[in-house]
Amino acid sequence: MSTSARIEAALAAALAIVDAKGSPPRLAAAMRHAVFPGGARVRPRLTLSVARACGENDPVLSDAAAAAVELLHCASLVHDDLPCFDDAPLRRGRPSVHRAFGERLAVLAGDALIVLAFQSIGAAGARAPQRLAPLLSLVAGGVGMPGGIAAGQGWECEPQVRLRDYQRAKTGALFAAAAGAGALAAGADARPWLALGEALGEAYQVADDIRDVAASVQLLGKPVGRDLALGRPSMARERGLEGAIAQFARLIGAAIDAVPACPGAADLRALVRREAERLLPETPRAEAAVPAA
Amino acid sequence: MSTSARIEAALAAALAIVDAKGSPPRLAAAMRHAVFPGGARVRPRLTLSVARACGENDPVLSDAAAAAVELLHCASLVHDDLPCFDDAPLRRGRPSVHRAFGERLAVLAGDALIVLAFQSIGAAGARAPQRLAPLLSLVAGGVGMPGGIAAGQGWECEPQVRLRDYQRAKTGALFAAAAGAGALAAGADARPWLALGEALGEAYQVADDIRDVAASVQLLGKPVGRDLALGRPSMARERGLEGAIAQFARLIGAAIDAVPACPGAADLRALVRREAERLLPETPRAEAAVPAA
Repeated sequence: MSTSARIEAALAAALAIVDAKGSPPRLAAAMRHAVFPGGARVRPRLTLSVARACGENDPVLSDAAAAAVELLHCASLVHDDLPCFDDAPLRRGRPSVHRAFGERLAVLAGDALIVLAFQSIGAAGARAPQRLAPLLSLVAGGVGMPGGIAAGQGWECEPQVRLRDYQRAKTGALFAAAAGAGALAAGADARPWLALGEALGEAYQVADDIRDVAASVQLLGKPVGRDLALGRPSMARERGLEGAIAQFARLIGAAIDAVPACPGAADLRALVRREAERLLPETPRAEAAVPAA
Repeated sequence: MSTSARIEAALAAALAIVDAKGSPPRLAAAMRHAVFPGGARVRPRLTLSVARACGENDPVLSDAAAAAVELLHCASLVHDDLPCFDDAPLRRGRPSVHRAFGERLAVLAGDALIVLAFQSIGAAGARAPQRLAPLLSLVAGGVGMPGGIAAGQGWECEPQVRLRDYQRAKTGALFAAAAGAGALAAGADARPWLALGEALGEAYQVADDIRDVAASVQLLGKPVGRDLALGRPSMARERGLEGAIAQFARLIGAAIDAVPACPGAADLRALVRREAERLLPETPRAEAAVPAA
């Protein structure tokens, strides 16, 4: 099975319980809308790639970890799109959850997706109890306080923010958790993998800033210029487009350098390079000094 | 240490990380506002009471489970008070989180409290790995889909709802999880304890319906009549005040009957009776046929 097919199957398995007898059908539909069809699924791909590089021996647990990471990402998008945050009408080229299902179901879908991530880990973790606690703590830390996604979004509500702390929490933390979760699911140490995830996550956020000012709505599937309009911290605004592109290239280089020596190292470096090429739309990417393969 | 003091200490310990270096201070303050000072803390008291009745031998884990259950309850209140749901200006006699901190921080505080609940369980569960997976699954099921709090709130967004399913999900499920979590934290079987929690939770919801139509704002610390004004499913509306009071008494009786035979049974039955007396304000309680002690 391809990595993509594995991820979709793991997500479908995690989502299966939302249609169980006695569950409210509109909330179930809102949750599915938030998860399918997906974006690039870069976080769960990172989880599975790292698990393989660590000699994956419990694919059920890696699948659950990968699904959990993606469910948490989807939950953060649903809440980030809410009227009180970005008020985004579109996500992945379709109506955002609150536009399609209303604000109440969007709040609930986000909440229930967060919980579902932990249900997914709990269900798979029963067979590998020694791996469960560190996996749970790492993944939860990627989205909670003091340094996960919620903390990153919390910085948007502060009068002053350090851009690096903000980006590290809002994007880097879940990427780091995604990478580390792959190692933990394989019974390996998470620590050597965190820097890879963090650098890739920060690069992702910088690319998003760049696209926010540079890309067209057709390419992104969401309105652009919104982060700037909302006054959100932005690398492209703080350093200009050229400075942001240079920072992106540095972060991609750091991610490639952070891949630990292991049998799967070449595959992982290739994954980072493919992401770099995918992340920036045509115009700015032509100027970016992405390290050669 | 008294049970109340244990619960407050467990919650303070869980909340400690929100003030860690690098965390956004307003989100941390919003989370504290949502948790302290608390309400009756009935769910964590149930967790600790059941843990003791099951021969508690890992108080760190029971404390974490009790804290997790209460954090999830507080999170649900924060989101339930949001403008798109109840738009409640007051909670526990103080401004609701969105009134005090704004809507964005209220969404984030709820999200981060959900995550914190699982961080709390993960941190304590490392020492008792065999107990962690069932504890995680049970607690998550009490708040997620298909039958936890989010599902219950989801039923408020459906055109048709069965009152019993709604109340069971919105309130009964987390009470059942609270009771079962106490057993699991003590290394015991959760199943004999679920019916106690579920009956108590449903009684709690029915009492809330009754108070919504009968109590004064001074007694509740929140505006009354709001569930009816919002058109939410309500036992007091469906069956009238007398029917709801009779149902409350039946549920309290069922909770008392559901206490399994164990050394702590008398204490647990007393806890249920105290809750019954506390739950209904003066006027309707005088009419309620609460089983005698």
